[in-house]
Amino acid sequence: MSEKRDYSTMSEPDFSALFKKIDELKPQFIDRLRKAVEIPSVSGDESLRPQVVKTAEFLKAELEALGAEDIELRELGTQPPPVADANLQLPPIVLSRFGKDPSKKTVLVYGHYDVQPAALEDGWNTDPFKLVEKNDVLYGRGSSDDKGPVMGWLNCIQAHRELGLELPVNLITCFEGMEESGSLGLDALIAKEATGYFKGVDAVTISDNYWLGTTKPVLTYGLRGVNYYQITVKGPAADLHSGLFGGIVAEPMTDLVKILATLVDTDGKILIKGIDEQVKKLTEEEDKLYDDIEFDVEVLNQATGSDTALYKTKKDILQHRWRYPSLSIHGIEGAFSEAGAKTVIPAKVKGKFSIRTVPDISSEKLTQLIVDHVNEQFKLLNSPNTCEAELIHDGDYWLSDPFNDNFTAARKATKAVWNIDPDLTREGGSIPITLTFEKELKTSVLLLPIGRGDDGAHSTNEKLDVSNYIEGVKTQSAYLHYYAQGSQ
Amino acid sequence: MSEKRDYSTMSEPDFSALFKKIDELKPQFIDRLRKAVEIPSVSGDESLRPQVVKTAEFLKAELEALGAEDIELRELGTQPPPVADANLQLPPIVLSRFGKDPSKKTVLVYGHYDVQPAALEDGWNTDPFKLVEKNDVLYGRGSSDDKGPVMGWLNCIQAHRELGLELPVNLITCFEGMEESGSLGLDALIAKEATGYFKGVDAVTISDNYWLGTTKPVLTYGLRGVNYYQITVKGPAADLHSGLFGGIVAEPMTDLVKILATLVDTDGKILIKGIDEQVKKLTEEEDKLYDDIEFDVEVLNQATGSDTALYKTKKDILQHRWRYPSLSIHGIEGAFSEAGAKTVIPAKVKGKFSIRTVPDISSEKLTQLIVDHVNEQFKLLNSPNTCEAELIHDGDYWLSDPFNDNFTAARKATKAVWNIDPDLTREGGSIPITLTFEKELKTSVLLLPIGRGDDGAHSTNEKLDVSNYIEGVKTQSAYLHYYAQGSQ
Repeated sequence: MSEKRDYSTMSEPDFSALFKKIDELKPQFIDRLRKAVEIPSVSGDESLRPQVVKTAEFLKAELEALGAEDIELRELGTQPPPVADANLQLPPIVLSRFGKDPSKKTVLVYGHYDVQPAALEDGWNTDPFKLVEKNDVLYGRGSSDDKGPVMGWLNCIQAHRELGLELPVNLITCFEGMEESGSLGLDALIAKEATGYFKGVDAVTISDNYWLGTTKPVLTYGLRGVNYYQITVKGPAADLHSGLFGGIVAEPMTDLVKILATLVDTDGKILIKGIDEQVKKLTEEEDKLYDDIEFDVEVLNQATGSDTALYKTKKDILQHRWRYPSLSIHGIEGAFSEAGAKTVIPAKVKGKFSIRTVPDISSEKLTQLIVDHVNEQFKLLNSPNTCEAELIHDGDYWLSDPFNDNFTAARKATKAVWNIDPDLTREGGSIPITLTFEKELKTSVLLLPIGRGDDGAHSTNEKLDVSNYIEGVKTQSAYLHYYAQGSQ
Repeated sequence: MSEKRDYSTMSEPDFSALFKKIDELKPQFIDRLRKAVEIPSVSGDESLRPQVVKTAEFLKAELEALGAEDIELRELGTQPPPVADANLQLPPIVLSRFGKDPSKKTVLVYGHYDVQPAALEDGWNTDPFKLVEKNDVLYGRGSSDDKGPVMGWLNCIQAHRELGLELPVNLITCFEGMEESGSLGLDALIAKEATGYFKGVDAVTISDNYWLGTTKPVLTYGLRGVNYYQITVKGPAADLHSGLFGGIVAEPMTDLVKILATLVDTDGKILIKGIDEQVKKLTEEEDKLYDDIEFDVEVLNQATGSDTALYKTKKDILQHRWRYPSLSIHGIEGAFSEAGAKTVIPAKVKGKFSIRTVPDISSEKLTQLIVDHVNEQFKLLNSPNTCEAELIHDGDYWLSDPFNDNFTAARKATKAVWNIDPDLTREGGSIPITLTFEKELKTSVLLLPIGRGDDGAHSTNEKLDVSNYIEGVKTQSAYLHYYAQGSQ
């Protein structure tokens, strides 16, 4: 088993030995994931911070055993407020490197070792911090998000080592411990290491999302951005009693609901002029990408637990989730919001809404359109109150070329493992780190999900199918080889 | 000074001896109020409940000293949840009686001996539970709301006693200790005692509101009612992430703000059909009642700390506060309501609003109009969500005849003391106990305020002007005599 192969020179690589080895190592791979899951690395719970750090140390030990070089637990300093413990240290970022061969391409793999909170009493069938295998499914917090995919990369390296097979690329790991709590410190680290630790990275691969459904692998090439807005309507100096003042003062809530009502229709149509015109036109070629995607309205209805879908066809649903903007009204700050009845006239209310952005919407232009729209609508009300619309934060959309070398390698790998072409998907939400890697390292980013759409990432009874875990290791491995091989 | 006079047979009573006595007793009256204010009888603070009870005992001792009969501290049992102490006893209602002469009329006077919370650090210039006299003004929590007026009735009795003057009516006191916390137990007591302790009551007088302004006495003959409604829009089974679901599901918040926007205009006009038609038409006679009332838009602007008044003339403002309905949107339950930005699609939202009701709006008809309106508007949205409008609670409006014997007596008394006809006012809010007395005792209720509009009843630095306190005792006294005298 120590024979050296170089798949990168083969037009049709033969992965049989590698895949066989991965199958053989299955019990060890599951054991590795078990050890990771059993450390409750909940980044959002300050009292569990030592467990998050313990997971970083576990990773360090594993990487050492696998022969990594330049292993670092990069400290990020204290966590900024609000925190109970002002000296709370951020969990470190685990950096390591396999190979420094200048003739090889360099791939950076990103994942996170922290998890969402979980407790048996939330409705878990088993202890969330024990990995429980049942009917070829692995249950446990972090099994799919994101300890499974992170262990996947380690498994990949182990399989190569046991075969005496050289990795076809230089591999850099970047595993963080704060992803579920805002990735504090990561942006700055990436920016700093773009010309340092991460110098020469050719491609970035993130295994931290999911298949769209439950049976067909996907590669993800786009994410929507999000612009969050607030409309503040102010009137009286303080909240008033509606008995004394109802009917004789202009009430800010009256104005605010009227303005909010002009933003979007029940059918999802955004009513603000000038936004639709900025949306990239759907080409026939792009439209075709949706033809083979496995999805239907029932999947959506199951996810929402209702029959409130605005569209009935697969293409309409997915395109409105992925490539068209949407506007959601989230709530109102400053008004009565509790149960029961309170007869207050709120003096100052803030309506909150956000717009999911897509190519080619410009954040600046969008904000101007919003401000103009709100001002115009407020003027029509002829109110003595004051009104102001403002941007609270924005995060850009991300769109990659699903036919570039990075995606092509992943497509070939998927085909080699699953014997099917992956669906090319986008996501409606944002993963800001994707954009950071792309911008700072000036390279292509690939989202290569391992788990299924029903893994319940942030929910109870989170799971990862054994097949997804093991075939995932194969896909990750084959991807590295196809990427090393380059476009042909 | 022991000469007995019977003013009730005199067409123009001579109050000179009585008023002189009241002036003489001023130091004692202020001292009585001082003792009352120094007991911090905050009904809303469970830890201060013993102080509330102590105030009841103080009243009992005062009434005994003044020769009252049938004095009772009527227990009302334990306070219903939510309370920290499940065995917390409600403060007693102080009942007493002066005179049982069947040839005399019987007047019940109501007031309350509990107060709003107060603390120096809220911005008081002096200890709120010390009565501080400065420039002929008495500062202290409860000075105006409502210990001053309650002491007024006791002062009234003392003055008669010291003159050896018989009270012209049988007087019953009903002083409660839970007014600032929902008057728990009072409704039931009134209903029960209508044929018991309160049997034969001819008139009820409540001194627990305020002059409209600061210089002119008023009598209050009307209160608006209030109907509180909730519109519930339900969609998905649970809150959704706007990244994943924005643009592909019908969002309950979108529907709710659209419906809320159809209820009322910025200028206060209620948009629900059929309500205006139920409002009693303004007669020329009623309109004239507003001619002499002391009020202007500046008073309103000062009260709201803004320039958001919907009307500029005295009549428009007061009529819209008192005799026209109003609709206020209070808030939304179930949506995001905190500071900051959260990208949630709320699954179930409840919009809250209330309508201040006036003669001759029927609560049942109003609710039907609301439900019909909301259903009609929701149908126009063509939404897959569900929507339901419901009444949460209603309290009727109250309108008395400001020219009946009870009010006429009070008007004459005011004229005798202040040498001016009082303004006849209504209030925009509700004092539910007014209606309870009227309905249960089947008698006329008079609101005879003692304090001024700027007394700051529930605010910091609550005060009662010495002149209001002392002239108030005279007014209360003269009122009893004029009422005994009957219409002439």
